[in-house]
Amino acid sequence: MSNSLNERNLTLLTDFYELTMAGGYFECEHKDRIAYFDMFYRSNPDKGGYAIMAGVEQMVEYLTNLHFTDEDIEYLRSRRIFTEGFLEYLKSFKFECDVWAIPEGTPIFPGEPIVTVRGPLIQAQFVETMILLSINHQSLIATKANRLRRAAKGRAVMEFGSRRAQGYDGAIYGARAAFIGGCCGTACTICERDFGVPALGTMAHSWIQSFDTEYEAFAAYAKLYPDNCTLLVDTYNTLKSGVPNAIKVFDEVLTPLGKRPKGIRIDSGDITYLSKKARKMLDNAGYVDCKICASNSLDEFIIKDMQLQGAQIDIYGVGERLITSSSSPVFGGVYKLVATENGSVMTPKIKISENVGKITTPCFKKLYRLYDNETGKSIADVITLHDEVIDDTKPYEIFDPVNTWKRKTIENFKAVDIRKQYIKNGKLVEAMPDIHEIKAYCESQLETLWDEVTRFENPHTYYVDLSQKLWDIKNSLLNEGKK
Amino acid sequence: MSNSLNERNLTLLTDFYELTMAGGYFECEHKDRIAYFDMFYRSNPDKGGYAIMAGVEQMVEYLTNLHFTDEDIEYLRSRRIFTEGFLEYLKSFKFECDVWAIPEGTPIFPGEPIVTVRGPLIQAQFVETMILLSINHQSLIATKANRLRRAAKGRAVMEFGSRRAQGYDGAIYGARAAFIGGCCGTACTICERDFGVPALGTMAHSWIQSFDTEYEAFAAYAKLYPDNCTLLVDTYNTLKSGVPNAIKVFDEVLTPLGKRPKGIRIDSGDITYLSKKARKMLDNAGYVDCKICASNSLDEFIIKDMQLQGAQIDIYGVGERLITSSSSPVFGGVYKLVATENGSVMTPKIKISENVGKITTPCFKKLYRLYDNETGKSIADVITLHDEVIDDTKPYEIFDPVNTWKRKTIENFKAVDIRKQYIKNGKLVEAMPDIHEIKAYCESQLETLWDEVTRFENPHTYYVDLSQKLWDIKNSLLNEGKK
Repeated sequence: MSNSLNERNLTLLTDFYELTMAGGYFECEHKDRIAYFDMFYRSNPDKGGYAIMAGVEQMVEYLTNLHFTDEDIEYLRSRRIFTEGFLEYLKSFKFECDVWAIPEGTPIFPGEPIVTVRGPLIQAQFVETMILLSINHQSLIATKANRLRRAAKGRAVMEFGSRRAQGYDGAIYGARAAFIGGCCGTACTICERDFGVPALGTMAHSWIQSFDTEYEAFAAYAKLYPDNCTLLVDTYNTLKSGVPNAIKVFDEVLTPLGKRPKGIRIDSGDITYLSKKARKMLDNAGYVDCKICASNSLDEFIIKDMQLQGAQIDIYGVGERLITSSSSPVFGGVYKLVATENGSVMTPKIKISENVGKITTPCFKKLYRLYDNETGKSIADVITLHDEVIDDTKPYEIFDPVNTWKRKTIENFKAVDIRKQYIKNGKLVEAMPDIHEIKAYCESQLETLWDEVTRFENPHTYYVDLSQKLWDIKNSLLNEGKK
Repeated sequence: MSNSLNERNLTLLTDFYELTMAGGYFECEHKDRIAYFDMFYRSNPDKGGYAIMAGVEQMVEYLTNLHFTDEDIEYLRSRRIFTEGFLEYLKSFKFECDVWAIPEGTPIFPGEPIVTVRGPLIQAQFVETMILLSINHQSLIATKANRLRRAAKGRAVMEFGSRRAQGYDGAIYGARAAFIGGCCGTACTICERDFGVPALGTMAHSWIQSFDTEYEAFAAYAKLYPDNCTLLVDTYNTLKSGVPNAIKVFDEVLTPLGKRPKGIRIDSGDITYLSKKARKMLDNAGYVDCKICASNSLDEFIIKDMQLQGAQIDIYGVGERLITSSSSPVFGGVYKLVATENGSVMTPKIKISENVGKITTPCFKKLYRLYDNETGKSIADVITLHDEVIDDTKPYEIFDPVNTWKRKTIENFKAVDIRKQYIKNGKLVEAMPDIHEIKAYCESQLETLWDEVTRFENPHTYYVDLSQKLWDIKNSLLNEGKK
């Protein structure tokens, strides 16, 4: 893979406080105390019922290659606040933590430990910025792509937004995440070269304008790419010029070559109306197999509305509103200390806040997803202590962690520990799936969600409960903390 | 500079249609016809009165190093749609265009040609995606940073958002752009190493939590960084624990060393209220010079409101809402063909759209900013043909390009061609300023804007007019096009 993160030195892509804290831990001599950090998030983008996990591959790639170059050390020395001892330590820094994460493509829910890092405090703290950045960005875009895919109800959605992305990686990894979440491909070429995401595209208006006539522009393109002939029909007048010229070129250039057209693309105007008219014109000309592709500031809400009005669109090209998730452009994952270990003594840690939503769940934990054996659907997720086992051969009682009187006993279910350990003592211990496997896994996991969870408006809040043991610990820490 | 774009191969970070079109131009033999493309944008983020230009340095770096590697060619060959002749051409591709742009840090307005590329059609078209991506991203963030700086009215604003950025470059170049637009620094360390943007930061809640007591955590930090001692005071209880412990540590650790504290940081709760109380406590303890830094989901609207309520904040730390420009996360720059040249004949090109806002202004153009000699303020921008000269020794009539009866004659003014030619025949011909110069230039240029243009609510629309000659050409093309 080119452009892999390994070839870039992003070690200092970190909040400066990670370095001042690391320097502090180093000098305080508790740098090697073992710490547990969880990444979790507090609410779904766009008030949806779930999000899609993504970015694990890049996170793992960064972590397993983490090192400080001489140039990094030189720069840090120039700041004149770090000791030589600390700089020496960084020079030979080796990442030795264990890392668990929810696999890419999995539906995830607020409050769940989507990543856990266990290791020397100085190390486990240092990686905060890049873990959050990797997962926050790609999960945001995968989630948005998944919303678009749902709105399109089986029609294809293409990612088109590179030019409006927030930075180069915004385009590249955004296109990767969009594919995971449900897009069929991207316009971002490098993403095909590096990740195998299908890259597609045909022409801009400038192609048409650079010829004397629209017909000549179409004909030249059709001759050159007879197997990939999608024509942009809205440069002058979609119904009076674009579609008739396209049909003429299909007749006069493609048909004699024994080729069929791939499609037409409409990029402006009242696309729903134009698509219905264009569909009829194409059908009447014998091109029922010619697809219609639409673009122009689309999002899931507009797509839903277009579908409702009977738009004849086969492929939706979505640009800026996908690549920036513009209606909800932040995935707010956080990374919090949940326990420390001194010798064999584990101390749970909690952050108590006036803001109830900011209170953390302490302890080294495990995350179970409970599937109904009959329907295959996900019933609830249960967060337990790391050494708890949910015995799914017996009835199991789940309860709401806030309104604890809300209880439900479930039977005939399967309990699956949905996280994987990717890194052990700094080394990769899990094979990374390719992007097509991730995408397929995502689709299969979405099948396990009830419609009530996946709907756009007022989705049902999926249960993310705590085991009784974990709840007890959290509750007693809260009571202690309030003394 | 490390992490420069040169060291990455981003040539294929391009919409796939740029390649199919390039292949088309190559085969059609009009690949070397000279074309002119303009980048412009249609509306300001957040309904503001202007935007701030940024990203030119990265755009220029990309363009002057553009080439296709063997790996790129291999990948393209594997697509089986490009001819060997075209692939050979790409192998020896050399960028030979001329590029003009508005310098970074300049206030810009909708409709202006902020970048112009002149060169062989095949080349000038190909660079579309990366030009737009570079300028759209950084101008978006510089503009948002500038809004924050205005809201903070002289108080400092720090960029804190790496963890929520849209990808790694979103963090890095976003922090660069934020500095240009008005931030005093960033938490993003790599941005100091690579661009000289001051990087700052102290501690997270986890630092406090990893010690047995808040006091111990503060004391350890103060001993280690006596010259940079900013303490995070909201882990347990800001007023009952955090501030008193901070003062105690200032007294017991810093004072004996002859050091003064740098500040305290409040990251949760009612920050306005807490800041006022904390200010009094610090002042009463003799630490009037100790700054108060606030963070926690801030944006320009909240900052304005906090200032209105008398918050005692010296430094605002702004994260996700700056680094993603979350209230307006897309800068919608476009790149359009405006003229072609065949031998010595220049043909203006226009894109006519049902959507009036999407109509382009044809021709190779120049952009003048007219400054009032008396006040130094910007009166209007005027777009002219490239060879027009505005004689500022004589009265000059400007007029509204839509409501052409709105006319105004201006006198005693200076007309400045505000664009620079950065690239000539593919080579850099303009020295790139360092980031501190850009920032200072931005501040000085903002001084030239009337308050009516810079206000948040209902800003005055700054005049961007066309010269009579340019207007005549545009108007006649529109009339022709509608026949």
